[in-house]
Amino acid sequence: MLLAVPLLAGAQVFTLTSEQLTEYTAKNPFERFADGRPKVPQKFFDRAQAMSAEEVWSVLPGKGFPNQYAGDFRVLHPGKKMIGRAFTVQFMPLRPDVDGVLQDRAKQKGMSRWANQSALDMLQPGDVLVVDLFGKEEGGTIVGDNLFYYTLKATKAGGLIVDGSIRDLEGISEMDMPAYFRHVHPTPIQNVMLTGINIPVRIGGVTVMPGDMVFGDKEGVYFIPPHLVENVLDNADVIHIHDEWTRKKFDEGKYKSSDIYPSPRDPALKAEYEAYLKKRLAEIRSK
Amino acid sequence: MLLAVPLLAGAQVFTLTSEQLTEYTAKNPFERFADGRPKVPQKFFDRAQAMSAEEVWSVLPGKGFPNQYAGDFRVLHPGKKMIGRAFTVQFMPLRPDVDGVLQDRAKQKGMSRWANQSALDMLQPGDVLVVDLFGKEEGGTIVGDNLFYYTLKATKAGGLIVDGSIRDLEGISEMDMPAYFRHVHPTPIQNVMLTGINIPVRIGGVTVMPGDMVFGDKEGVYFIPPHLVENVLDNADVIHIHDEWTRKKFDEGKYKSSDIYPSPRDPALKAEYEAYLKKRLAEIRSK
Amino acid sequence: MLLAVPLLAGAQVFTLTSEQLTEYTAKNPFERFADGRPKVPQKFFDRAQAMSAEEVWSVLPGKGFPNQYAGDFRVLHPGKKMIGRAFTVQFMPLRPDVDGVLQDRAKQKGMSRWANQSALDMLQPGDVLVVDLFGKEEGGTIVGDNLFYYTLKATKAGGLIVDGSIRDLEGISEMDMPAYFRHVHPTPIQNVMLTGINIPVRIGGVTVMPGDMVFGDKEGVYFIPPHLVENVLDNADVIHIHDEWTRKKFDEGKYKSSDIYPSPRDPALKAEYEAYLKKRLAEIRSK
Amino acid sequence: MLLAVPLLAGAQVFTLTSEQLTEYTAKNPFERFADGRPKVPQKFFDRAQAMSAEEVWSVLPGKGFPNQYAGDFRVLHPGKKMIGRAFTVQFMPLRPDVDGVLQDRAKQKGMSRWANQSALDMLQPGDVLVVDLFGKEEGGTIVGDNLFYYTLKATKAGGLIVDGSIRDLEGISEMDMPAYFRHVHPTPIQNVMLTGINIPVRIGGVTVMPGDMVFGDKEGVYFIPPHLVENVLDNADVIHIHDEWTRKKFDEGKYKSSDIYPSPRDPALKAEYEAYLKKRLAEIRSK
Amino acid sequence: MLLAVPLLAGAQVFTLTSEQLTEYTAKNPFERFADGRPKVPQKFFDRAQAMSAEEVWSVLPGKGFPNQYAGDFRVLHPGKKMIGRAFTVQFMPLRPDVDGVLQDRAKQKGMSRWANQSALDMLQPGDVLVVDLFGKEEGGTIVGDNLFYYTLKATKAGGLIVDGSIRDLEGISEMDMPAYFRHVHPTPIQNVMLTGINIPVRIGGVTVMPGDMVFGDKEGVYFIPPHLVENVLDNADVIHIHDEWTRKKFDEGKYKSSDIYPSPRDPALKAEYEAYLKKRLAEIRSK
Amino acid sequence: MLLAVPLLAGAQVFTLTSEQLTEYTAKNPFERFADGRPKVPQKFFDRAQAMSAEEVWSVLPGKGFPNQYAGDFRVLHPGKKMIGRAFTVQFMPLRPDVDGVLQDRAKQKGMSRWANQSALDMLQPGDVLVVDLFGKEEGGTIVGDNLFYYTLKATKAGGLIVDGSIRDLEGISEMDMPAYFRHVHPTPIQNVMLTGINIPVRIGGVTVMPGDMVFGDKEGVYFIPPHLVENVLDNADVIHIHDEWTRKKFDEGKYKSSDIYPSPRDPALKAEYEAYLKKRLAEIRSK
Repeated sequence: MLLAVPLLAGAQVFTLTSEQLTEYTAKNPFERFADGRPKVPQKFFDRAQAMSAEEVWSVLPGKGFPNQYAGDFRVLHPGKKMIGRAFTVQFMPLRPDVDGVLQDRAKQKGMSRWANQSALDMLQPGDVLVVDLFGKEEGGTIVGDNLFYYTLKATKAGGLIVDGSIRDLEGISEMDMPAYFRHVHPTPIQNVMLTGINIPVRIGGVTVMPGDMVFGDKEGVYFIPPHLVENVLDNADVIHIHDEWTRKKFDEGKYKSSDIYPSPRDPALKAEYEAYLKKRLAEIRSK
Repeated sequence: MLLAVPLLAGAQVFTLTSEQLTEYTAKNPFERFADGRPKVPQKFFDRAQAMSAEEVWSVLPGKGFPNQYAGDFRVLHPGKKMIGRAFTVQFMPLRPDVDGVLQDRAKQKGMSRWANQSALDMLQPGDVLVVDLFGKEEGGTIVGDNLFYYTLKATKAGGLIVDGSIRDLEGISEMDMPAYFRHVHPTPIQNVMLTGINIPVRIGGVTVMPGDMVFGDKEGVYFIPPHLVENVLDNADVIHIHDEWTRKKFDEGKYKSSDIYPSPRDPALKAEYEAYLKKRLAEIRSK
Repeated sequence: MLLAVPLLAGAQVFTLTSEQLTEYTAKNPFERFADGRPKVPQKFFDRAQAMSAEEVWSVLPGKGFPNQYAGDFRVLHPGKKMIGRAFTVQFMPLRPDVDGVLQDRAKQKGMSRWANQSALDMLQPGDVLVVDLFGKEEGGTIVGDNLFYYTLKATKAGGLIVDGSIRDLEGISEMDMPAYFRHVHPTPIQNVMLTGINIPVRIGGVTVMPGDMVFGDKEGVYFIPPHLVENVLDNADVIHIHDEWTRKKFDEGKYKSSDIYPSPRDPALKAEYEAYLKKRLAEIRSK
Repeated sequence: MLLAVPLLAGAQVFTLTSEQLTEYTAKNPFERFADGRPKVPQKFFDRAQAMSAEEVWSVLPGKGFPNQYAGDFRVLHPGKKMIGRAFTVQFMPLRPDVDGVLQDRAKQKGMSRWANQSALDMLQPGDVLVVDLFGKEEGGTIVGDNLFYYTLKATKAGGLIVDGSIRDLEGISEMDMPAYFRHVHPTPIQNVMLTGINIPVRIGGVTVMPGDMVFGDKEGVYFIPPHLVENVLDNADVIHIHDEWTRKKFDEGKYKSSDIYPSPRDPALKAEYEAYLKKRLAEIRSK
Repeated sequence: MLLAVPLLAGAQVFTLTSEQLTEYTAKNPFERFADGRPKVPQKFFDRAQAMSAEEVWSVLPGKGFPNQYAGDFRVLHPGKKMIGRAFTVQFMPLRPDVDGVLQDRAKQKGMSRWANQSALDMLQPGDVLVVDLFGKEEGGTIVGDNLFYYTLKATKAGGLIVDGSIRDLEGISEMDMPAYFRHVHPTPIQNVMLTGINIPVRIGGVTVMPGDMVFGDKEGVYFIPPHLVENVLDNADVIHIHDEWTRKKFDEGKYKSSDIYPSPRDPALKAEYEAYLKKRLAEIRSK
Repeated sequence: MLLAVPLLAGAQVFTLTSEQLTEYTAKNPFERFADGRPKVPQKFFDRAQAMSAEEVWSVLPGKGFPNQYAGDFRVLHPGKKMIGRAFTVQFMPLRPDVDGVLQDRAKQKGMSRWANQSALDMLQPGDVLVVDLFGKEEGGTIVGDNLFYYTLKATKAGGLIVDGSIRDLEGISEMDMPAYFRHVHPTPIQNVMLTGINIPVRIGGVTVMPGDMVFGDKEGVYFIPPHLVENVLDNADVIHIHDEWTRKKFDEGKYKSSDIYPSPRDPALKAEYEAYLKKRLAEIRSK
């Protein structure tokens, strides 16, 4: 698969070399794929299972990243978290002059067509396929049931986000991979051209970078820059403990909300909370 | 019920005689109702249970029918297919000069009022009630729970599509008939007049003909001209087998998506697929 | 032209016979065209030049017609009133089975095609072309500049309302005929079929009857049933006088709005107003 | 808690005194809270469990209240009715000149901040929190999971309606309290100021009065003036019986819908229905 | 007129006493009306004629007021600036229980009805009528042509902003007063009740305070707190001079945009600009 | 200016080298700029003054380019054609990790900031600035009045298209350069980063290539690939003559629209038209 990267890369309009992608994601503290894409380790995915979109928010804007959330999707399996590494794909409206060049290049490399499957063929376990189809409904369908199934297999159920459509909702609904899309439509993908793979893409108000950690829950989707992943997860631990303690206090029924939340006003309660936090953090971190 | 047709027909603004409807649906290969409406046989309904909107698409545009799909509905029971024969009804904004004529005619025929129930009273088993209420939300409510129940009984759970609203979502949700609507609202139907029964009506971007086979799944609704029904279903059999084979191959984990889909590139695989298709088709067709 | 009516009529899906149209517009106090369409006399058009949409409203709902106004149009020449008789045309999404029948019939009658020009060819002086293209933007363009010019010539600048698009806004802008449309788009009309001429059509929330008096100003468009035309115009005279008097009083600067409007509270002022109304009405009516 | 009312009230921009609220709700036949808010008795909440939005509609417009329904919400738990007393809260876009005055006042009363929690702290069992956040999505989030939990505890699962957003849908989804909102967003509430508690507020096209009985089902939300509550519930009993009888008749399969609905046409059936109604009403009322 | 204030005030639901309004606008450096409303002096209106929305923006957010702009209006006379003092009015959806109390009170004070004209009757020269009709289109029409004319006379062409509709666009278009509205519709105002006069109201994302200086141009409308008016105008003088100088430099054709704008990079040019600014400011200020 | 190209190019995320741009626009029959951008000659701009969007449509789809039209803009000067060469610019939502790299690079090259002015500084006479700001309203304002003025000077009034906003509509309205935008807003551009100059960008449903001939009229905007420019203009000559002849015939008042349009049915008329076309074409071409 790795060898495929340089071969394929030449067919798209926009390309980042491994060096360029490394430069733009210079703060990434983790390993990288051969194409320069950051590789957030699997262990963080496991920790993220208990997190919510909310908890990502409490870190990112404070670090200068207020634009990493995208909402207003149809969510395929609302009870299922989506966690993985962003594999980005960009389409633009078809122009035969430009697409003709892309198809010629692809043919020279032995590919039958330069289209959505050219990108799917590059997916790896843990990837989330992130597709800019500029909100297109009719003909903006990145996959139907067969290619959804392929994506599930290739990414080990990583997931799919498309600012566009999917087709065959009926068939896809039975497959156990999270997916976020704007519309459903029975037409296959058409009247577009594939202009970029693993380049920065726009999903709603977010610039998604290849290798961002993708986190989706019932509310929407967060794209977390790799260098902030650990920070976000550590903070989520604190929030969980804070929530536990807060609700226990509310259960007691003798406090007003502002006595306890966002932080206890009474010094004794504050001390109690801090002791609780310390103890519980130690328990969690020792796992 | 059959006798009712000519009696009722005279009250509406737009009418197709049995001869006219027969002319517009001249390619219908099946029997007809007394009013000329094609009667797609029940056996095709059974076969359609395994089909998806997707699979209808793969036939109709190629036959010159690109405009037969309507989406963007609220779907009452997303897990339940809707399959039946289109029974079409058209309403227009109320004008007392026109509606007065309709009410007079209806009274002459012994009916108490010329309104939504005039159409409901004509429903037959296997019908899907298809209603053009021009997207009206308030007062565009074709049925509440009682008349939904009547429709369920009269059509044997055929179904309901309304480009408008339903009321009493609470009550209707418990009834086991598929329904597609744009809105819910508590007002009863009002400020409209009933202008046509079993005439061509528009639902979104589709002209629906009386007697079209209606097929609804999670994605949306297809209106299939009777002469293409068998074609669509035969093709769906092929697609099912193609999907089976494709996913088995993907399960093997050694192919890229473009090796297998949309059709296998390797001649040996192609032969394997074709043998599989032949065998499975024979099995299915022999049932 | 008159002979064309029965010939053409047979090609459309929905038809009202002259008798049917006469029945639906039975209250029409004026002459009719050969096809049954009411012919509101020219003299009322002249009187309507001084009227506003507002003034139509003050009569119609009280007579049981609350649904005769349509707004939210792009208005070609906002300073120019549109006044004429509704000539209605209906399109629906294309289905080749139905359209094929229409084209066959048209050919049997020596027409080259059954399409938008089939309707335009029937226009008469004083007509306003009222077209239901169900809000279609791309391909929902009833005319471009040449056929707009033809319409201008054939109707003597009667006007055009389309719940759909026009094309060639650049060229049309220079032509001196009022027009109301939803969109502009460069595509020609396509993917639709002509299903009715001079039948009831829906424009927004209005059922328009052939022969309705059409009145358009900066605000939007009113469709006035012929039997209410004189009533509306007489009432507009009263409103104009009321407005004259009211503003003269406001000009005096010594009254609050509620002293004078909607009617003077002080008995002496009331008497003054009534005398003024009587005098001015007499002047106007004597013209 | 009661003591808190006069203390807090002074901090908001808009206030109704107990006397004013009593005047505006003069028809209230029930007890009141200390702040004048009508206190619809719990027994009516129990009866309302079997009701639907539909049935509220059949009484209110006829009593001159056509504007009491709000729809187009996202419904947290569609299978769960929301029933309680309206506790209203109003926010407006932030202006530091006005908000500064509010914060100063709040500080003088020993409160840390004048914001959403100032209102939450006043909630009582049986309340439904009704919040006007003018449809704000980003930063229009009345609660996250912790304060949702507090609201659940303080109101005994009364419920929440916000013309705005909630945050942390993931966490809130697991909590057993009905909620209606326009959007979800991960941002906390910001860029607004709290301008009123228990004053008339607007939710969609409804003016909600403090103490209205709130009724929510799958369809949307009704705000029932206290003096009409008993009327609505009594009428719902009749509708339930009517529905029972109507469906039994439809089950017999020998009637058209108009024979039976909305009321039986045949005198014998009419008598049968009336006897049934009388008997069943007696049974219900005797419980 | 002044005496009317306390008399009328009692009829509305929400009232600010003169003391309360003074408190909320405590930073106002100017005189006040008897009801406490700040009275920005006429001389600032004259200076504002040369200003644009743009220039207001360059001051307000920096002073902590980012929410003072409202856009997306239909603008009656795009070439005409609107400048005056906000006179605010609030409507809410009709409830007969509440409205009945208001009408009773009004009658006790000798008024015929408590409705839109109750507010219009209080207008003064230099006022801009600012109306919250919650975006209502049908029936949300604050004035027709007669009351628009009254407003023009009473305010000396101050202006009108309505988050709702006007009616009789045809008649109003000929009157020389600026106006901003969301829609036009022929229906008169209905199904609402007048709940506040000269209280804080919401227009789009702005909380408007009575006495704010209103500034409208082609782009939209700004509501400027009185204490920032002089600041805004002084700053606009600087911007005008900056624009003069910048364009003169661009006219020379030898600079790139970034050499000159937003401020000159070259020290010599910077000095030149500063000398120019000083000289021109002196000229302007000496007028 | 030419030297600036390679210097600046390095700062953006997406870059096409001169070779790549030449490859994608290989069919360009004209000269190129140093950066590879096609340079459609001025003489075609002059010919295009008489053209309409309509006439572009009649060529491009037939050549395989159905996606070159963008509509739904606010048009600054509807009576003024916009004609020039596309100079494309792309922005994406801000991410400090990516933008930091861009700013660093820019600083290394002696630029103060990498932002909208970096692109403006590269404009040349005859350019139309085409900006993808992904429809952003607040903060999506490519220019205010000063930079609009700069653009006018630098492009010799070429023009501006932005899928986003402009600010200072008041000031810009007085400047004599065509402009197409989605919104107006007083905020300056913010929360975005400049990711590409003279790369393919998306405007609505169009992929715009650097060097496309831009043509804007009242209706909307067309982006014409250079190799089709002459074809489009030659065809427009024919359409103009066809329009002249058609209208002369309509002026005669003796033909139905279908006798003459789209082409004359009668062989004699057809011959007349063809002679006319030949003569007039010769006249035009000899100029």
